[in-house]
Amino acid sequence: MTEAAKPIRVALLGCGTVGTQIVRLLTEQADDLAARVGAPVELAGIAVRRANKPRPGVPAELLTTDAAGLVTRDDVDVVVEVIGGIEPTRDWLLTALKAGKSVVTANKALLAEHAGDLFAAADATGADLYFEAAVAGAIPLLRPLRESMAGDRITRVMGIVNGTTNFILSAMDETGAGYAEALDEASRLGYAEADPTADVEGYDAASKAAILASIAFHTRVTAGQVHREGITGVTAADVAAARALGRTIKLLAICERVEAGGDRPGEAVAVRVHPAMIPRSHPLAGVNGAFNAVFVEADAAGQLMFYGQGAGGAPTASAVLGDLVAVARNRVVGGRGPRESAYADLPVRPIAQAATRYHISLDVADRAGVLAAVAAVFAQHEVSIAAVRQEGRSSDASLVIVTHSAPDAALRSTVDKIAGLPFVHDVVSVMRVEGEEL
Amino acid sequence: MTEAAKPIRVALLGCGTVGTQIVRLLTEQADDLAARVGAPVELAGIAVRRANKPRPGVPAELLTTDAAGLVTRDDVDVVVEVIGGIEPTRDWLLTALKAGKSVVTANKALLAEHAGDLFAAADATGADLYFEAAVAGAIPLLRPLRESMAGDRITRVMGIVNGTTNFILSAMDETGAGYAEALDEASRLGYAEADPTADVEGYDAASKAAILASIAFHTRVTAGQVHREGITGVTAADVAAARALGRTIKLLAICERVEAGGDRPGEAVAVRVHPAMIPRSHPLAGVNGAFNAVFVEADAAGQLMFYGQGAGGAPTASAVLGDLVAVARNRVVGGRGPRESAYADLPVRPIAQAATRYHISLDVADRAGVLAAVAAVFAQHEVSIAAVRQEGRSSDASLVIVTHSAPDAALRSTVDKIAGLPFVHDVVSVMRVEGEEL
Repeated sequence: MTEAAKPIRVALLGCGTVGTQIVRLLTEQADDLAARVGAPVELAGIAVRRANKPRPGVPAELLTTDAAGLVTRDDVDVVVEVIGGIEPTRDWLLTALKAGKSVVTANKALLAEHAGDLFAAADATGADLYFEAAVAGAIPLLRPLRESMAGDRITRVMGIVNGTTNFILSAMDETGAGYAEALDEASRLGYAEADPTADVEGYDAASKAAILASIAFHTRVTAGQVHREGITGVTAADVAAARALGRTIKLLAICERVEAGGDRPGEAVAVRVHPAMIPRSHPLAGVNGAFNAVFVEADAAGQLMFYGQGAGGAPTASAVLGDLVAVARNRVVGGRGPRESAYADLPVRPIAQAATRYHISLDVADRAGVLAAVAAVFAQHEVSIAAVRQEGRSSDASLVIVTHSAPDAALRSTVDKIAGLPFVHDVVSVMRVEGEEL
Repeated sequence: MTEAAKPIRVALLGCGTVGTQIVRLLTEQADDLAARVGAPVELAGIAVRRANKPRPGVPAELLTTDAAGLVTRDDVDVVVEVIGGIEPTRDWLLTALKAGKSVVTANKALLAEHAGDLFAAADATGADLYFEAAVAGAIPLLRPLRESMAGDRITRVMGIVNGTTNFILSAMDETGAGYAEALDEASRLGYAEADPTADVEGYDAASKAAILASIAFHTRVTAGQVHREGITGVTAADVAAARALGRTIKLLAICERVEAGGDRPGEAVAVRVHPAMIPRSHPLAGVNGAFNAVFVEADAAGQLMFYGQGAGGAPTASAVLGDLVAVARNRVVGGRGPRESAYADLPVRPIAQAATRYHISLDVADRAGVLAAVAAVFAQHEVSIAAVRQEGRSSDASLVIVTHSAPDAALRSTVDKIAGLPFVHDVVSVMRVEGEEL
């Protein structure tokens, strides 16, 4: 590092929870960052919606409401974006990349829809595009997938990538509360946003799953291609049923390399987000609250796990600053970070063709022949039963069935048919099952 | 990627368990690797000790016994080293780097002693030096520490980084076997080498700890600066004592940012490898057999964990190939990987100044005044007692003491003095304690 190295100038878009932490770390760790980059890293400006809001620790003279102007300023080398949302953020980042500014973003929704456009704009000018903070907060996950495992063949990525839903499901499991009650608690404690839709309906996790699948399988996957089920339909009865089987319910993001199926030869990608029962002995079962954890399976590496804080100002800022050091260093010493790797271009297989195991819990009349009739419906739909448990309860009985892997469509038809049987009083719970065979 | 991109040519040093897997993956994944690198990756030659040994799947025409000649060949771009040992490997890699070849190595012992020389040689020619496989096998750990966390301040790294000792300690815990018996079992199953010294005496873990500390704290730390205690002194009594307290014994590598202490202001680095009792509820307690797991704590990121296979041919080859893709890509698109980052240059604090908690188990005479006398010795040496448990057993008694954090030297003096007390029949177990306070 030469003493006179030209500073790397950073435009920050957004100054909320994460942005404030970025400003703090850039200031407090200025000497360390300069040593690691090989040049000072300086804030050139901070774009906010309201410039006159008090922001302790944030230099007021850097604030501007003109994001579009800031990102193309001549004295800006790197744009760091922590605003979120699709528009107008997308426009600003495309403009920045086209102007040759490198971009570091935490914006999962944008990446999951428009990664192709953003990478193309970056390629046109040789700029860098980094987004470690977009998935699993502080956990180094995208860089290991993109770089450390670049010599391996990843077969599966499965994890808990949304803290809000994990908090709610943990609370339901611990207290027996219903979904609405647990959501209220999460809102009260600040774990759920005023409008929790993006989290509880699985949109946030689906965006992250799309990003993970794109990187793991070198194939462009968008959020719209991810099969998505949220947790709003998870009931106290589901949670109790899971508990009775030594299991717990987690919202999982699962990205798999699968056979294309149908009459297509070769491989495909299957990406899904849904609640599932997993064994309490599974490492993901112990991941509680705002923590995230992701399993990665690869041919040579075997099974890996990454664990850490999935959200929050400081953890997210840590991931952003790691990326910022990388792109700043690329500016100083030359070189570029990874570009989009979508050469494999595998088809994305629809969920209807996906096979998962299911747990079905029924309230049935307690009389002879019920199990035989129910089993016959499973057989008609070619859904194979792995285990059955039947318990009499005075006039009715509880019937719990766990299937072998079955296509989603076949299972849905089976359950529809069973629900209409005269001696079936209630379909208490239908839930996918992940983890080892029962 | 242009179709006519010039191939990246690789010299492989060593063709044992790991080397054979590297050859296999380079062949099987040739198309994927070419797409990810932007050019074909080809084997230029393989240096082995005996060229006429049968090696299924390895092209015989590539074998040579002339490693020194191979690493400087004009048609070689990258040297991959999986031989191990210090000499002559060090000479070959220095020669390669001085000739401008990038180097990927899995050699922890070499890195832990001579990283400075190797990085200097790499810097002189602009070559890359990567060594992800040197620590924790397939687990992406060094790249996250070097790059993903480059914007954060790491305070602690603690993990299980040696599979052999972990297998032995797991076996002792599960069966109640003594050390010798568990070592025999490990040897029989192929988990321990014919000469297990490097593993069981903690040399292997100390090398890895030195590498982790160097990267985490931007300070050159060599293996010789690591306080090292192996597991040969761990007894069945120690294991039983741990079990009685709801704990288990693991060989831990611990790298900490600490106060320099004494009359030196500022920070220092403390690095140690030793067996320690940890709570059975600690995530590291569940890491068994050949698996490795490493916790990282940083100011902004909080606590992270990385878990996966720590050794073996294919997992190690996965890490090597990830590095190979990175250096090959740097050759194709320009740019360089991280250089040595030792700017912080913190002092390494000797273990005598380090404070850890201890468990001490004594056989004492069962009579009044024993605890008072023992406690007085602790007080004389300014070692504070956190918990005591005394159990009478006919004529003698078991006295278990857990201390608050105490300097190593003070604890040693305390135990020496206590061992000489007339009513102390035996010092059954003295073991460090890690994890949360009791």
